[in-house]
Amino acid sequence: MADKTIPYKIYLSEEDMPKAWYNLRADMKNKPAPLLNPGTGKPLTAEELAPIFCEELVAQELDDTTPFIEIPEEIRNFYKMFRPSPLVRAYCLEEKLGTPAKIYYKFEGNNTSGSHKLNSAIAQAYYAKKQGLKGVTTETGAGQWGTALSMACSYFGLDCKVYMVKVSYEQKPFRREVMRTYGASVVPSPSETTEVGKKILAEHPGTTGSLGCAISEAVEVATKNPGYRYVLGSVLNQVLLHQSVIGLETKTALDKYGIKPDIIIGCAGGGSNLGGLIAPFMGEKLRGEADYRIIAVEPASCPSFTRGTFAYDFCDTGMICPLAKMYTLGSSFIPSPNHAGGLRFHGMSSTLSQLYHDGYMEATSVEQTAVFEAAEMFARVEGILPAPESSHAIRAAIDEALKCKETGEEKTIVFGLTGTGYFDLVAYQKFNDGEMTDQIPTDEDIAASIAKLPKVPEM
Amino acid sequence: MADKTIPYKIYLSEEDMPKAWYNLRADMKNKPAPLLNPGTGKPLTAEELAPIFCEELVAQELDDTTPFIEIPEEIRNFYKMFRPSPLVRAYCLEEKLGTPAKIYYKFEGNNTSGSHKLNSAIAQAYYAKKQGLKGVTTETGAGQWGTALSMACSYFGLDCKVYMVKVSYEQKPFRREVMRTYGASVVPSPSETTEVGKKILAEHPGTTGSLGCAISEAVEVATKNPGYRYVLGSVLNQVLLHQSVIGLETKTALDKYGIKPDIIIGCAGGGSNLGGLIAPFMGEKLRGEADYRIIAVEPASCPSFTRGTFAYDFCDTGMICPLAKMYTLGSSFIPSPNHAGGLRFHGMSSTLSQLYHDGYMEATSVEQTAVFEAAEMFARVEGILPAPESSHAIRAAIDEALKCKETGEEKTIVFGLTGTGYFDLVAYQKFNDGEMTDQIPTDEDIAASIAKLPKVPEM
Repeated sequence: MADKTIPYKIYLSEEDMPKAWYNLRADMKNKPAPLLNPGTGKPLTAEELAPIFCEELVAQELDDTTPFIEIPEEIRNFYKMFRPSPLVRAYCLEEKLGTPAKIYYKFEGNNTSGSHKLNSAIAQAYYAKKQGLKGVTTETGAGQWGTALSMACSYFGLDCKVYMVKVSYEQKPFRREVMRTYGASVVPSPSETTEVGKKILAEHPGTTGSLGCAISEAVEVATKNPGYRYVLGSVLNQVLLHQSVIGLETKTALDKYGIKPDIIIGCAGGGSNLGGLIAPFMGEKLRGEADYRIIAVEPASCPSFTRGTFAYDFCDTGMICPLAKMYTLGSSFIPSPNHAGGLRFHGMSSTLSQLYHDGYMEATSVEQTAVFEAAEMFARVEGILPAPESSHAIRAAIDEALKCKETGEEKTIVFGLTGTGYFDLVAYQKFNDGEMTDQIPTDEDIAASIAKLPKVPEM
Repeated sequence: MADKTIPYKIYLSEEDMPKAWYNLRADMKNKPAPLLNPGTGKPLTAEELAPIFCEELVAQELDDTTPFIEIPEEIRNFYKMFRPSPLVRAYCLEEKLGTPAKIYYKFEGNNTSGSHKLNSAIAQAYYAKKQGLKGVTTETGAGQWGTALSMACSYFGLDCKVYMVKVSYEQKPFRREVMRTYGASVVPSPSETTEVGKKILAEHPGTTGSLGCAISEAVEVATKNPGYRYVLGSVLNQVLLHQSVIGLETKTALDKYGIKPDIIIGCAGGGSNLGGLIAPFMGEKLRGEADYRIIAVEPASCPSFTRGTFAYDFCDTGMICPLAKMYTLGSSFIPSPNHAGGLRFHGMSSTLSQLYHDGYMEATSVEQTAVFEAAEMFARVEGILPAPESSHAIRAAIDEALKCKETGEEKTIVFGLTGTGYFDLVAYQKFNDGEMTDQIPTDEDIAASIAKLPKVPEM
């Protein structure tokens, strides 16, 4: 417990909370490539997106020039229920590792959804309410996003229909019950409630579903029912915008104590947490005001940055969604049943993909058993039981801190602890029982799905 | 959102955290009656308690004169990982109820054990470590105490053996896995690892166990193994002492904004949370410095204060523990399988029992379905999914706030939100499916178990 001038937890006051989201794209010279209409191969317009997404969210999705977008007061009031979130100095972890590094983590798990997802869920629900909609539809796999959206819809009195991948619906009944407690209707997907669901059930009786299928059902319900729109918890520019509250608070807390990080680390599935955490730091880097090492951490079982290709691809397995230019393993890539459900996505945010492509950030992949070793060590010394997704960032932070131990460097490491693992205890049990494995795709697996990427006209 | 001078959450700084626990007994004119040796009927001495409990904890248990007992620095350092806990102004609940009352809750669930139990677990683990012990044993039913103790033992490098009621071990595998992740050995009780366990298994093959049986096993292991002691998560004076951090922080936060509560409400099972929350307020009341309405809330299915009797009784169903003078339904009383496992105890803290007997506090009982209605409303407007135990206090707070709505009184209500309900979703599912019932004992049930109270000499 060396450096006691910094408290364990740096809490901000409500007045310190950001009043505007930071739109990273405004500071990018190479803007993220636009979403394309899969039919025409041309950039999607606001008009084309309006039947699917809420109006103001479409505007946010397409706006790559406005640096700050005001957070409406209603959203800031909701944020106050669980924000500002603490920036924690990991004194006990540092001591356990015997490292001269100074480690901080921004903890986003202190809310019932258990993760950072609530930051964007409440924003999306707000704009749906403002537009006078009746409700929203979405899909959920691991359940964090569905839970967050249920909470947000309950707050604004919106109907919320969640299509939950059938295997998760059955294996994670507790997640389902949290959503129901918040008033959401949770439908196991594929279901008889949609045309696409019926079709899939007819073709594949007994299927336990997939995220791609759940997306298709949620989109169908949103577009066929007047007063409904579809919402999504990651990948999109609008989601990264909302998640910038994570980074803005982190920066304010660090500035309060005059701390300048050397390394910033976040786990990356679709990119919502990482994009939010790094936003203001990446902004400084883009504007040439400061330099930071920024590291995306992904599972070795689903390595879109480290082993994927930078190309246009479908965002969903069902190939009904717009095309996005991103690092991708191919939309037909089926990741192994890794326990970090939130990181099992074949692609990556277009914004982060462009930044990675342009050399502004690094990426690394880590193996599942090493991730759970880090998770267990962290839980035992820091108290918090981390989500498997978040534990990818813990693993990378520990590895960087151990390098500092070798070199004697006193680097400052900041990582994002996106959530808690209370609903992931089947995974912990596998680890505790020594039954966890690493499932790494072969080069052939990846090459096969990348070979199936859609052909699009050169931009 | 009327009164915006008070923030949603009043966070204290680490410097504001109490440096000493407050020992309520020091200010009581009528001290709680001493524990009796069930063999001799005489007050237990420190020597008699030493083979069961750690030395310093025995001293704390017996000390009813020292008002403040310093919190060792090691414990305060651990507290900093999850304390100070927020005092939240329930603006959204007030708005939902349309009440002029001002409602605050002290939220103790922001730690991996999910409840206030960690406050005492870390203290008990510290004193065990200081005494040079190898480890501790305990029992757990619902699992909150076992989880908290596992975390505390992991922090101090102590062995932790938890005897978990077999039916809970099987029905709550996730609680079990959290404990294992923190390195505890979790044994389903009754087990073949103890003499008493073997005896019970021989007599009742296929039994799913009881808390009384688990206590017996944990005590046997502690007393038979050199370097081990037994620890307990509620009822005892030492536990109420440690839990006084809840009330001390609450008072500091209220004082910061010049707020004087009218009503203080806590759920009561063994009394650890309620005793901790009310400690400094009750102290003022005992010293004649202030007056507050203090309300204990218990389940209608296990109503020790409201329908029990004030007498000496065993603390455990197995009748091997010391006798305590308390409000009790009789140690042979078997409460219905109410979902608030932490409130299913036939007796009550001796300290709180004496205060209730002397008219310093009120008690009320609430029915299970009404509790879950309150829990669901609270979750939807305040965001936090509450534990069933905590929801008893929510129910009573809502009822008081609704009375204010009728009378127009702007009373200030403070209640203890002891924990989160992430591991109680079977109960929420029952409620969501409309399958929950209230199980209220008949007068005959209670009279029958009270008739079996042990005979003890008049003190």
